[in-house]
Amino acid sequence: MLRNDQLDQWDREAFFHPSTHLAQHARGEAPNRVIQTAKGCHITDRDGNELLDAFAGLYCVNVGYGRPEIAEAIAEQAKELAYYHAYVGHGTEVSITLAKMVLDRAPAGMSKVYFGLGGSDANETNIKLVWYYNNILGRPEKKKIISRWRGYHGSGLMTGSLTGLELFHKKFDLPLANVIHTDAPYYLRRPDAGMSEAAFVDHLVAELEALIEREGADTIAAFIGEPLMGTGGIVPPPEGYWPAIQKVLDKHDILLIADEVVTGFGRLGSMFGSDHYGMRPDLITIAKGLTSAYAPLSGSIVGDKMWKVLEQGTDENGPIGHGWTYSAHPIGAAAGVANLKLIDDLKLVENAGRVGKILNDALRDAVGGHAHVAEVRGEGMIAAVEFQKDVAGRKFFEASEKIGPQISAKLLEQGVIARAMPQGDILGFAPPFCLTEAEVEEIAGKTAEAVAAVLG
Amino acid sequence: MLRNDQLDQWDREAFFHPSTHLAQHARGEAPNRVIQTAKGCHITDRDGNELLDAFAGLYCVNVGYGRPEIAEAIAEQAKELAYYHAYVGHGTEVSITLAKMVLDRAPAGMSKVYFGLGGSDANETNIKLVWYYNNILGRPEKKKIISRWRGYHGSGLMTGSLTGLELFHKKFDLPLANVIHTDAPYYLRRPDAGMSEAAFVDHLVAELEALIEREGADTIAAFIGEPLMGTGGIVPPPEGYWPAIQKVLDKHDILLIADEVVTGFGRLGSMFGSDHYGMRPDLITIAKGLTSAYAPLSGSIVGDKMWKVLEQGTDENGPIGHGWTYSAHPIGAAAGVANLKLIDDLKLVENAGRVGKILNDALRDAVGGHAHVAEVRGEGMIAAVEFQKDVAGRKFFEASEKIGPQISAKLLEQGVIARAMPQGDILGFAPPFCLTEAEVEEIAGKTAEAVAAVLG
Repeated sequence: MLRNDQLDQWDREAFFHPSTHLAQHARGEAPNRVIQTAKGCHITDRDGNELLDAFAGLYCVNVGYGRPEIAEAIAEQAKELAYYHAYVGHGTEVSITLAKMVLDRAPAGMSKVYFGLGGSDANETNIKLVWYYNNILGRPEKKKIISRWRGYHGSGLMTGSLTGLELFHKKFDLPLANVIHTDAPYYLRRPDAGMSEAAFVDHLVAELEALIEREGADTIAAFIGEPLMGTGGIVPPPEGYWPAIQKVLDKHDILLIADEVVTGFGRLGSMFGSDHYGMRPDLITIAKGLTSAYAPLSGSIVGDKMWKVLEQGTDENGPIGHGWTYSAHPIGAAAGVANLKLIDDLKLVENAGRVGKILNDALRDAVGGHAHVAEVRGEGMIAAVEFQKDVAGRKFFEASEKIGPQISAKLLEQGVIARAMPQGDILGFAPPFCLTEAEVEEIAGKTAEAVAAVLG
Repeated sequence: MLRNDQLDQWDREAFFHPSTHLAQHARGEAPNRVIQTAKGCHITDRDGNELLDAFAGLYCVNVGYGRPEIAEAIAEQAKELAYYHAYVGHGTEVSITLAKMVLDRAPAGMSKVYFGLGGSDANETNIKLVWYYNNILGRPEKKKIISRWRGYHGSGLMTGSLTGLELFHKKFDLPLANVIHTDAPYYLRRPDAGMSEAAFVDHLVAELEALIEREGADTIAAFIGEPLMGTGGIVPPPEGYWPAIQKVLDKHDILLIADEVVTGFGRLGSMFGSDHYGMRPDLITIAKGLTSAYAPLSGSIVGDKMWKVLEQGTDENGPIGHGWTYSAHPIGAAAGVANLKLIDDLKLVENAGRVGKILNDALRDAVGGHAHVAEVRGEGMIAAVEFQKDVAGRKFFEASEKIGPQISAKLLEQGVIARAMPQGDILGFAPPFCLTEAEVEEIAGKTAEAVAAVLG
């Protein structure tokens, strides 16, 4: 095994980390951390620090770390057949089985699964399919995609454009053409404090209608949204939001893409967020929870209506010009099959709902009454605490005060990982579904301490 | 184990295959194939058919199938730590070690490695970095990317735009804005039969200069190219091409992205194609050969000049807004470390050069003299045979005659997989580097038979 100091040197010299201050990392000014092993909700680094990971990696290790069932499935597949491609009708037992398992769990009206690698490339696939769809239907002008401010749909050029967060646009010349944004269903940030949830939904619907009117419905192909907003702040939709939006989309023949990368396979205490909130998507993006991150795999679940047109498209034009070398990679597929079985066998979706509610309640009890806590919100096994300078006056802290990052750093000092969400002072929690009640106690207690340490 | 007929039904009902005729697949009109295991250069399907894979999957299983060293590295990593993210300075022993190993093997002047999942997302990262670079340097107008007709750089929206093949553009509204194409260095298809290689290079340089002149050098950020064109036809560049192109790019301060997804880590008999042909890239795309496809992993190797500017960018703007959840995935990194070690231990780069030459010579001997063979070309362990209706008259077959696909289907009947490249009648070979001389004989012999069966 390599010495830590040798690894540290190589890390600074050779490794370009995502979402990192590159200069500080290279100069050795920012801390790094080499993770060595993990079990359940705990990770251990090479310096022997054990941390309670209340964010499940990047809300992806849904079944928890160190599951031998998945590791063994990966090992067996690696030995038997690590790779063959899925082009031109090729497959493997695991990739075909997983496609069937995904459809068995998916909302009604879904037809086929295309497997990719990560959430970004799955959304890339989705946009290609949406454009292809309208070209086959002879509607070449119907191509714009509506996304929401604070939505998160990836970090590529198109997918980063769909993402409605400044960090992902600034200095990258995004968003690209053909992507337009509408308001986030973020009740805390509603335009007027006196607005009811129902009135806020009416307001969002009116905004969307106005946007469609302005752009022309015949130029708009699809609307993309996460059932519950993730990276934009962990924001459950206001009551009745999705059915109201769905109605507008149906009226204007606009497809709905449900980005279930975070919510798919149990995060909200239901198998899919679309069912949870009454969405009727034409495409569903899946990734993280599909394999619990044990191996890279994502997917686009294609609904019946679109699939028919895709078939027509290949009848008219021949094989579809889309594919990744690693589409439906056998290692990812093996991890996916074992992961979905484990979720069933251990009833982890139910557990996410049950313990998730305990977590949400415990956080509310622990910090909900704090003078600077504007809101504790969540659903199933995901929660957020949002801070304001003046809650009654609805005033936020300045970004430069870095309140969220400070609190998350304090929590880390106490051995708990929560995530300072990128835009606002929002502390995010999304633990593995196997979280225990004792771990809930620890998270809530230490969160209260960290909040007190930073905000008094 | 599931029955074949059960798998067949699920495959038709649930699985959306890449690059497939979707309607024929779903209706059961096109053959499918479920691969079960593989060893060396041979794959075996669930019906017991054993095939000699002379295309190494999708030219990616470079070390050959069934290597226990890589399977064990994957198994161990899956057991110890299947996943943790690489954001904000986090890493694992394998990902840091692999970054160091990649840089040790890379051309001179390279600084850091960003790890992604597949070649498409690595090129997506590259374009984001190129735009960021020119924004930091205060050159917001310098953003266009020059690619080549017949280049292959991926299948996403931006990366499919960079790709210069009709199949990937048609019905997808590609290429996007900001991508422009110049001529392919395809000597067989030179404008005038009488043109020497040197004159053809002068012609390509003049075309490029004219394009830059037309667009304005201050609007052009980068030029992207594969050292040897892959999917566009397996086309080695004419003598002196890259140094001549490099000179033009240097003059106009245009960055060079070498897409080494196919050529990186030994395909040409050298570790990198950039060194092989005298390119001095600012960014290098790596994928397939990095792990021999045992697990998904790609990378962007960033040169010193760009890295300095990226550091400046984060000093001025904070952490870089780019990342995939599965960047530097530990399973991929473990596969990468074991794969690169195996390549060294078994001297597979040298073997690719030596046996590759034998393969190229054998194909030339077997079919080079056939009346309809316009060219047998290649370099290291990659080769192509291109067919024409009238070689002396430089006339191609009609695409509708499907000569390439027919020959590849005949070869498959004889148990050998070669690839009918998508644009033209071109039969492609890119076997694993462990190909034996006996396997060369088999490939060449059966190719001659298949050509004779289709073309007489």
